[in-house]
Amino acid sequence: MQIDLPTLRGFFASAPFMVDLGIEPVAAGEGRVTTVLPLARRHLQHTGQVHAGVMASMADHTMGAAGQTMAAEGFWIITAELKTSLLRPGKGERLVCEAWVVKPGRTLTFTEAEVFAEAGDGARTLVMKASATMALVPAERPARP
Amino acid sequence: MQIDLPTLRGFFASAPFMVDLGIEPVAAGEGRVTTVLPLARRHLQHTGQVHAGVMASMADHTMGAAGQTMAAEGFWIITAELKTSLLRPGKGERLVCEAWVVKPGRTLTFTEAEVFAEAGDGARTLVMKASATMALVPAERPARP
Amino acid sequence: MQIDLPTLRGFFASAPFMVDLGIEPVAAGEGRVTTVLPLARRHLQHTGQVHAGVMASMADHTMGAAGQTMAAEGFWIITAELKTSLLRPGKGERLVCEAWVVKPGRTLTFTEAEVFAEAGDGARTLVMKASATMALVPAERPARP
Amino acid sequence: MQIDLPTLRGFFASAPFMVDLGIEPVAAGEGRVTTVLPLARRHLQHTGQVHAGVMASMADHTMGAAGQTMAAEGFWIITAELKTSLLRPGKGERLVCEAWVVKPGRTLTFTEAEVFAEAGDGARTLVMKASATMALVPAERPARP
Repeated sequence: MQIDLPTLRGFFASAPFMVDLGIEPVAAGEGRVTTVLPLARRHLQHTGQVHAGVMASMADHTMGAAGQTMAAEGFWIITAELKTSLLRPGKGERLVCEAWVVKPGRTLTFTEAEVFAEAGDGARTLVMKASATMALVPAERPARP
Repeated sequence: MQIDLPTLRGFFASAPFMVDLGIEPVAAGEGRVTTVLPLARRHLQHTGQVHAGVMASMADHTMGAAGQTMAAEGFWIITAELKTSLLRPGKGERLVCEAWVVKPGRTLTFTEAEVFAEAGDGARTLVMKASATMALVPAERPARP
Repeated sequence: MQIDLPTLRGFFASAPFMVDLGIEPVAAGEGRVTTVLPLARRHLQHTGQVHAGVMASMADHTMGAAGQTMAAEGFWIITAELKTSLLRPGKGERLVCEAWVVKPGRTLTFTEAEVFAEAGDGARTLVMKASATMALVPAERPARP
Repeated sequence: MQIDLPTLRGFFASAPFMVDLGIEPVAAGEGRVTTVLPLARRHLQHTGQVHAGVMASMADHTMGAAGQTMAAEGFWIITAELKTSLLRPGKGERLVCEAWVVKPGRTLTFTEAEVFAEAGDGARTLVMKASATMALVPAERPARP
C-alpha cells in the first residue's frame, strides 16, 4: 500500500495519542517516514530532558507508518516488539524521527528509527536508536496475533 | 536509597510527562513499584486500543522507579535500553504496571515490568512485558553516560 | 503439538549446532523446556567466563523448543527476534536453561528464558535473562516470514 | 585504545569460543570491525540453515571488538545486552559480519552489526541485524558491573 503525505497525515490524525503528543508526519516515501514533534514542558523528564517514553512513542508510531507504506492491501501493521537505545540526553526545540523498513514481509516486517533533538539553529543530535518487529494482521481483525 | 510511597509520589509528580499522561505510583517496596493509569480516549491508537507508546512510557518510568529504590545514595537511574513485547490488545478502564529489579548493580541495573489492562470489574489481562538496562549516574551529572 | 522428552531429545539431536555445543533437554512440559550444557574450555570467552554467544544460543534453542510444545500441528517455530541481558559472569561446571512460553499464538509466540551457571556443589547463579519473539511458519516452508 | 588487525587477530585467538566456531577478523578501523566464518554442517539448525545462535555469537563478539577499538586504555568491553533480528534464512558458504560503534562512552558504548550470508559467487544477503549495549569495566575487574 503506497501512502502519500496527505493520507499519512490522516493516519496520524486518527490516532488520538499522536494528536495528544503533537507528533506529525512531514515526509514519506516507500518504506520511509519522517515525523516532527515541537517540544513543550509536558514532554519532559524530571531532569529537564525529553522523557524516554515520548521518544519511544514517536519511534514506534513512525516505524509503524513506514512499515504500513509497504504493507499488502488490507493489512494493518501492529508492533509486536520494540527496542530503544537512549544514546544522549534529549534537549532542544523539537524532535525529528526518521524511520525506515529494514525488511518487509507478508507476516512480519522489521523496521528501524533514529530520533534527533533539534536546536533552535537547526543543529541535530542523535538521541535515540530504535528497532521493531512489526506484525501484519488483516485489517478486519485489529487484534494482536 | 529506600523510597517510601510519599517520596515516590513526589518523584512521579516532578516528571511532567508522567503528570501529563496521568500515571501515579500506588505501591512500593525494595526493588518493586506498582503504578496505575486511568485510561482516556487520548491514550488510544487509531484501532481503539491503548497506544503502545503509552504502555512503553509507563513501563519505562515504573522500572526506573523500581531501580531507584535500590540505587546507591547520590545516584540517579536513567534508561540506557528498553525492550517491550506487545502480547495482547490493550483495552479496559485502566492500566496497572508492576516493575521489579532483576539484578541491581553499581553502574548497571536490570529491570522488568508487566503492564495489565484492567476492566471495570477488576479483571486483569497481561498486555505488555518489558525489560530494561538502566544506568546509574551521579546525581550532579544528569546526562547519559 | 505436545512434545514428550524423547521426541524433544530427537529435536535437539537433529540440530547440528546443538549437538556441537553439547546442549541437551532434560525436562519438558506444556510450554516449558529445561536444557543443560556441561561446560568445557571451548565455551569460554578470553576472560575465562562462558561466552555470551553460548548462553544466547542455549536460550534461543530452548525457547524455540518451549514454543514448539504449544505450536499448532504442521507449524515450525523460528526465531524472529531475540534479546539477552547478561546479568553476571558465567562460571561453573555446567549451564542450566529454563525456557517458557509467555504468550502462545497462531502466528507469533512470545517466550522467555533464564540461564543459570551451576557450580560443582549444585549451587545455581542466574547469569542471563532472555526474551524472544517467535514466528510460526508452515512446516513445508522452513523460511523466514 | 586503537587496535590494528594483528592485535585484533590475537584478541579473537584468545577467545576459545571464537576459535571453536572458526570466526576471524579480516578488517578493522576506529569503531569498526569485520569478521568472517566459513560455514560447516556443525553450524546449522535442523532446517539446514545457519543456527541463530551462531550468528548471534558472531555479532556479539564482532560488536565487542568494534567497541574495544574506541575504549579508553585499561578498560574491557563486555556485553550488557544484545538484541538480534533474524531477517532471512542463513544459507551460503560463509558468513560476513560488519560491526560498528553507534555511540562510544566512558561507561556504556552502543554498537550495531549486520550479518551477511555469502554464496560461492560472492553474492551477499543480509540475514541478521543486531544491536548491543556494551559496558566498560576496568581490565583488572573482568566481572559484570
